Amino acid sequence: MTQTHDSHTTFADLDPQFEAEFADRLQLDPEAQDLLFREARTANTFTDEPVTDTQVRAIYELVKWGPTSMNNQPLRIVLVRSPEARGRLVEHMGGNNKAKTSTAPLVAILAADTDFHDELPKTFPHAPGARDAFAGDPGRREDIARLNGALQVAYFIIGVRAAGLAAGPMTGMDVDAVDREFFPDGAHRTLAVVNIGHPGEDAWMPRLPRLDYDEVVTAV
Amino acid sequence: MTQTHDSHTTFADLDPQFEAEFADRLQLDPEAQDLLFREARTANTFTDEPVTDTQVRAIYELVKWGPTSMNNQPLRIVLVRSPEARGRLVEHMGGNNKAKTSTAPLVAILAADTDFHDELPKTFPHAPGARDAFAGDPGRREDIARLNGALQVAYFIIGVRAAGLAAGPMTGMDVDAVDREFFPDGAHRTLAVVNIGHPGEDAWMPRLPRLDYDEVVTAV
Repeated sequence: MTQTHDSHTTFADLDPQFEAEFADRLQLDPEAQDLLFREARTANTFTDEPVTDTQVRAIYELVKWGPTSMNNQPLRIVLVRSPEARGRLVEHMGGNNKAKTSTAPLVAILAADTDFHDELPKTFPHAPGARDAFAGDPGRREDIARLNGALQVAYFIIGVRAAGLAAGPMTGMDVDAVDREFFPDGAHRTLAVVNIGHPGEDAWMPRLPRLDYDEVVTAV
Repeated sequence: MTQTHDSHTTFADLDPQFEAEFADRLQLDPEAQDLLFREARTANTFTDEPVTDTQVRAIYELVKWGPTSMNNQPLRIVLVRSPEARGRLVEHMGGNNKAKTSTAPLVAILAADTDFHDELPKTFPHAPGARDAFAGDPGRREDIARLNGALQVAYFIIGVRAAGLAAGPMTGMDVDAVDREFFPDGAHRTLAVVNIGHPGEDAWMPRLPRLDYDEVVTAV
């Protein structure tokens, strides 16, 4: 057991026996576990097959149900469809991310809307004073938008995988420049850019080690 | 179609026809979609049935595979098992969250470790200079830890649901006090507290509306 555990936190492939021991204890079926987590990988290359708006819509209509604080849903998604917009984005991506972002079938900018409170009368209707309570505190709104927007980025990545597509989430970029270029209202904070498509040749790096359970979880 | 769409962004139950139209376009089977997103709800009450360490372990061994920037994995999880620790936590929870946190079978504090860079030699071994590159910039580490820790909070919530359990994630608390109480090293930032168990009586509020696709997604 200890030996198995150690071996799977190296570059080696997953240890089937170790994985199965825990996979069987979940209600989610093993194929779904593989699709969303165990066999899903961050893709660095893609085929030419396009990603349609209908696919993005199907992803959104699933992951919109993921929970956020006070149902505040700050995530906003910009699909970079035109070559002109793609060029403006690639300019601000870091190093290796430029090439990946240039060639992916679909690139999405995921940002948090710090004016999420304007939607609270719709999204949290039983607390009619909620919008005004946030109106005077942009710093608090920014913290809340970043935290909950990041939750929704993760739901979105899971949703891309649920659609049978590969996601290539990236944070290496000049985020302030991306904000200025794509969100001139000054109210949005770019959290990640995600390349989306079907994985191409040599799509992934060797799997990187994960922290052991005992390094992450403690009990008090 | 428009009528269907409008009706499902109210307090009404989901519209089966609308949901099925998009559910069928995903590779993930509809039962798994329901388990993780569509029928999963934030639970406010729980039965007495305990949540075992083995269940938490199974959740972790699945969701540890979720992607983070540079594989940095900043999430740390504290399982609040003792009545004494539960009392210390409840004291700092806000309003309605006190009662929920007092009675849930298991309560987990999810925090981001701003010293995640100390693990990079293990988690990102092909970039041996990465640890030192972050060492002198605690402000940047804090931003990175909060963003990636929040991604992992979302993966964890999905994992709780994958285990057939209900999650009750909360952010309404005195986070600075929780940090001082449970992370005296000063290097961790509490992101959320999650109640975990089997849903009890009147476990959920009516489902709250989600933003429409066109309110969230734009194309450029």
